Amino acid sequence: MSQYQHVALIGLGLLAGSISLAIRREGMGAKITGTARSKATRDKAQELGLVDEVFNTAAEAVKGADLIILCLPVGAMGRVAEEIAPCLERGATITDVGSVKRAVADTVGPHMPDHVHFIPSHPMAGTEKSGPEAGFASLFDNRWCLMTPLDGTDHSAVERLSKFWTSLGANVEMMDVDHHDLVASVISHAPHLIAYTMVGVADDMTRVTKTEVVNYSAAGFRDFTRIAASDPTMWRDVFLNNKDATLEVLGRFTEELFALQRAIRTGDGDFLFDYFTRTRAIRRSIIDAGQDTDAPNFGRGYDHIEEN
Amino acid sequence: MSQYQHVALIGLGLLAGSISLAIRREGMGAKITGTARSKATRDKAQELGLVDEVFNTAAEAVKGADLIILCLPVGAMGRVAEEIAPCLERGATITDVGSVKRAVADTVGPHMPDHVHFIPSHPMAGTEKSGPEAGFASLFDNRWCLMTPLDGTDHSAVERLSKFWTSLGANVEMMDVDHHDLVASVISHAPHLIAYTMVGVADDMTRVTKTEVVNYSAAGFRDFTRIAASDPTMWRDVFLNNKDATLEVLGRFTEELFALQRAIRTGDGDFLFDYFTRTRAIRRSIIDAGQDTDAPNFGRGYDHIEEN
Repeated sequence: MSQYQHVALIGLGLLAGSISLAIRREGMGAKITGTARSKATRDKAQELGLVDEVFNTAAEAVKGADLIILCLPVGAMGRVAEEIAPCLERGATITDVGSVKRAVADTVGPHMPDHVHFIPSHPMAGTEKSGPEAGFASLFDNRWCLMTPLDGTDHSAVERLSKFWTSLGANVEMMDVDHHDLVASVISHAPHLIAYTMVGVADDMTRVTKTEVVNYSAAGFRDFTRIAASDPTMWRDVFLNNKDATLEVLGRFTEELFALQRAIRTGDGDFLFDYFTRTRAIRRSIIDAGQDTDAPNFGRGYDHIEEN
Repeated sequence: MSQYQHVALIGLGLLAGSISLAIRREGMGAKITGTARSKATRDKAQELGLVDEVFNTAAEAVKGADLIILCLPVGAMGRVAEEIAPCLERGATITDVGSVKRAVADTVGPHMPDHVHFIPSHPMAGTEKSGPEAGFASLFDNRWCLMTPLDGTDHSAVERLSKFWTSLGANVEMMDVDHHDLVASVISHAPHLIAYTMVGVADDMTRVTKTEVVNYSAAGFRDFTRIAASDPTMWRDVFLNNKDATLEVLGRFTEELFALQRAIRTGDGDFLFDYFTRTRAIRRSIIDAGQDTDAPNFGRGYDHIEEN
């Protein structure tokens, strides 16, 4: 009973595509059905062999599935949950890949019938690309998947879903729903908003030409543009649905930025030096934790290889 | 007369190491001398074969050189310029690799005797590493080198230096000194300060553990930590010496960030979506300009290869 027999993917973008390819890589033998709102996406997913069967509606796609994964922007999940609720098999597990967990728990949860297990998940993996063709089997390898089971959820169902994510290559950690949203705002949501902002500012500066911005981007700006190229719909929904934590972190950020600006204005070199020395140590910890390599990258355009 | 016969590297870090290796790669046959403040760095550079001869002082290292490159933090350049001034050969060219050009022009320029050519340069290449062992021959390949010749500089000397940077793999562009500092503040200095700030905030958030920050960094934060791992001394000097432009861009950034924060607070999804769609287009231009690859990278830890 540890493996699922039939996985339904609701939404067929980068995440769903990668889940499908990782399931196949692991030889799980599960049947995979799926649906997406646009016909072009459904056709593409079928052409790529990401699904055994593709359906026009989520209600049809979930029939008979013992694992349903909502691979949708957070803002679309409540509506879809309502649609699939009457069609869910007894004992099925419903999870999702949303970057925000409180909003998912609150909008999906109330629609879920008592005879299913609803367990929110957040596989922290992705690229700046979107669409089914952006998926690749190794996306989850050594990445973290945070699961935020709600009170009263069946332990064996949680255990089974955890094993599923692990078999896709991820490391699983259980976390409280609200704590998840705070952590995510610090390490992901606020950095994304800041990158979007900086790229917007560069685009707006009339005294610096667009050609200059583009040509000289390797000097620090390039990493920001990669982050700021992420899917607009997904990120709009993230910010609208993790409002409080994001605004709190941004408030802290602004306060800190003003302190550094002040040090620049007053010429306080020691303050700047000490600050930059501290942040360098954090980078070291991340490399030691295996979440990045030690290969020099920053500013280089030709040291990436595609894995998929 | 196009190639230099004897290149003196003042300062032996990542940039000097890469210049040396690139000179050797191109088979220029130039003699390379050098110096660094610390004995450990001097010994390391010699051990790595980066210099034919290493000296304890800059004054000794520049003797007989027809090209002197100041590879120092911006704040150290004035003092060194004063030291080497009496030892410079007639007709020698003095340049630098500083990220700020007005301050270099103003602190180095006045020390330069009439019989030499002082031409500030900014090769926009680097990694988050420092030290002579961090250098690699391909650092400048297809990167931009901005040259900011001052009024009255001999044209053939500028042309000769331009050819030198080109032979190291760089694309050269001439730019006005002050315009350079504005461009650099947008595409490099402000992004660096923002990355340093965000990493500092994450480190400060007491409700999020350091382990959480480190483990889950792949979700957006990792690119910031790479930028924020850059050399503290170099960056302190950059901010202290490009104060006005950096503060101007940060002011614009804060204004824009507040507009986005407000959209989050008021739930203005259209504003967010439109903003994020615009920034995505800029990313596309950067890939088309060859300053990054289209390989999906964001959030992945294992898709870098070291080139050197």
